[in-house]
Amino acid sequence: MTDPLFENVTLIGIGLIGSSLARVIRAKGLARHVTIATRSAPTLEAARALDLGHAYTLSNAEAVADADLVIVSVPVGASEAVAREIGPHLKRGAIVTDVGSTKASVVRQMQPHIPETAHFIAGHPIAGTEQSGPESGFAELFEGRWCILTPTPGTDADAIARLKAFWEACGSTVEEMDPEHHDLVLAIVSHLPHIIAYNIVGTADDLETVTKSEVIKYSASGFRDFTRLAASDPVMWRDVCLHNRDAILEMLARFSEDLASLQRAVRWGDGDKLFDLFTRTRGIRRSIVEAGQDTDVPNFGRNVLKQDAKAGSS
Amino acid sequence: MTDPLFENVTLIGIGLIGSSLARVIRAKGLARHVTIATRSAPTLEAARALDLGHAYTLSNAEAVADADLVIVSVPVGASEAVAREIGPHLKRGAIVTDVGSTKASVVRQMQPHIPETAHFIAGHPIAGTEQSGPESGFAELFEGRWCILTPTPGTDADAIARLKAFWEACGSTVEEMDPEHHDLVLAIVSHLPHIIAYNIVGTADDLETVTKSEVIKYSASGFRDFTRLAASDPVMWRDVCLHNRDAILEMLARFSEDLASLQRAVRWGDGDKLFDLFTRTRGIRRSIVEAGQDTDVPNFGRNVLKQDAKAGSS
Ligand SMILES: NC(=O)c1ccc[n+]([C@@H]2O[C@H](COP(=O)([O-])OP(=O)(O)OC[C@H]3O[C@@H](n4cnc5c(N)ncnc54)[C@H](OP(=O)(O)O)[C@@H]3O)[C@@H](O)[C@H]2O)c1
Ligand SMILES: NC(=O)c1ccc[n+]([C@@H]2O[C@H](COP(=O)([O-])OP(=O)(O)OC[C@H]3O[C@@H](n4cnc5c(N)ncnc54)[C@H](OP(=O)(O)O)[C@@H]3O)[C@@H](O)[C@H]2O)c1
Repeated sequence: MTDPLFENVTLIGIGLIGSSLARVIRAKGLARHVTIATRSAPTLEAARALDLGHAYTLSNAEAVADADLVIVSVPVGASEAVAREIGPHLKRGAIVTDVGSTKASVVRQMQPHIPETAHFIAGHPIAGTEQSGPESGFAELFEGRWCILTPTPGTDADAIARLKAFWEACGSTVEEMDPEHHDLVLAIVSHLPHIIAYNIVGTADDLETVTKSEVIKYSASGFRDFTRLAASDPVMWRDVCLHNRDAILEMLARFSEDLASLQRAVRWGDGDKLFDLFTRTRGIRRSIVEAGQDTDVPNFGRNVLKQDAKAGSS
Repeated sequence: MTDPLFENVTLIGIGLIGSSLARVIRAKGLARHVTIATRSAPTLEAARALDLGHAYTLSNAEAVADADLVIVSVPVGASEAVAREIGPHLKRGAIVTDVGSTKASVVRQMQPHIPETAHFIAGHPIAGTEQSGPESGFAELFEGRWCILTPTPGTDADAIARLKAFWEACGSTVEEMDPEHHDLVLAIVSHLPHIIAYNIVGTADDLETVTKSEVIKYSASGFRDFTRLAASDPVMWRDVCLHNRDAILEMLARFSEDLASLQRAVRWGDGDKLFDLFTRTRGIRRSIVEAGQDTDVPNFGRNVLKQDAKAGSS
């Protein structure tokens, strides 16, 4: 093991993101000692059973006493309470960061509770899955992904550099952005897609003319993609909606306006307009695949997995 | 090779669906002789280079002269023209079917041109990918999927049974339905998801506050799922919209109503309402995975593919 980036790292919250961090820290030797804290005894025991760290506690205050780096991975609505608990117990020079999916609200919630002697830098790894809990994490989650940091003006440059080095060691590329811009970007690439997915699955669930068993049977024709997003953690997504309200409402308004125009084209049989929209959207897909952010194997490679499974090779 | 189900099969249209049929027919020996017809010389040459059949022609009329089974796999808007061309040249007892994504319109377009001496049975395999053209097909496409047949009253039961046996031999399970009900079911499980996906990708493409490079970089957080659907063939989807108008407009209206209510919940910070919707949608996902219509590997297994690729094993 080369010299670790931090002596003592404390992870508060040990679900999908927290436990993925624990795993990559261990795999790459990024800390000498990892303390894990979470709200509930069952989750703490699960983390212990998975051997995710060196020390385990239900007390956030205790957990941070020796920490050089504290990473808070809880639903964004719980950020303020956690910051208030840990603020008074932070070591001089400690870096406190988070992984929450919204940033302006988290900065407002946490910043005031972090003492001048420590460094607060909000962050968001753009990496995840539809699953949650300590069992669902894996060390490679952050590899080839982006991590956005949203430091406020005046934040210590050296602290930013150390946090950046940490995320890079996890396999990510780091970008800095102001929190408001982050929230606008994420509203379109993440929050709106999830809301739309939840909504369409809800609409399907409510139909009387089409049965639920028909929806399930024939889901392979497109719908199943949406159900994956709509199976994400409801607490996390409730909090995202409550804490990025303005940007989400702005994107929803634009989406609905565009949809009304598409609806008009369907109603009036305007084939040219439909064809034009359906053509220009292909370019974005190509760019995403070229940027390494998705696979170009058909159906995301589900068929390959199926064949592998059959051949007994995975 | 066991006795083939049909002596002579003619495939009209040899894109994703037609070429997947050609491949499974060859792989499983479902016909003794396969004739391939398509509109354009380049596509016909591609089919020949891929060795997808035994005879190749640009003339649909010629192609069907000896056929016991004719499968038409072209955009639904082209169904009538194809039926008009082949009608007069069909052998007594020939079965004519299609694979189009809408059914009431296809029945209206094709049925009148098929003589009494032949059997017309419209069909739709619920299987596909976002890719198109003869290179994109594969023999396993229909495996473990459903195929819907929408015979009209009075259709010869023996002809239905033979077509059913064909699709079962391709690996599918066959259901019968009336064309109007098919169109309603598909409007929610397939057409609406594609339209919504095209729409959100269009909305993202139009933003001024978020750059296109940001949308591409951070797409992994949900958006990239939509771009896959929105990369599907524009001609096919234009035709679906034009030929399933009423059912699509009905589903769009319900979707928009539900979205307005969700939007209100975001605006007024109604966390309980958001939580309730985000919770009940999880059940559908679970049922789809249990029904074998999707994988439960996180992110559809993209990460697994990535790791395989790294290990050099695929
Ligand atoms: N999932 C993703 O794809 C993704 C991607 C990027 C960022 N994020 C962000 O990462 C954060 C964590 O998400 P996750 O997916 O890791 O969630 P998760 O798997 O559900 O884990 C949540 C963790 O937070 C704790 N927690 C829940 N409610 C809490 C509360 N009110 N107060 C204190 N602790 C609480 C849980 O503790 P107990 O189990 O002990 O109750 C658990 O340790 C969220 O802010 C989310 O927005 C998620
Ligand atoms: N893609 C899916 O996921 C999927 C799933 C289930 C059902 N379907 C249905 O299957 C049918 C074929 O789709 P596909 O994905 O196989 O399409 P594709 O890969 O784009 O192939 C289309 C075929 O139709 C021919 N064609 C195109 N326009 C035509 C026209 N105006 N007149 C006559 N022939 C024409 C093409 O011939 P040239 O190349 O020679 O021009 C080509 O052979 C469509 O009705 C679609 O709704 C598709």
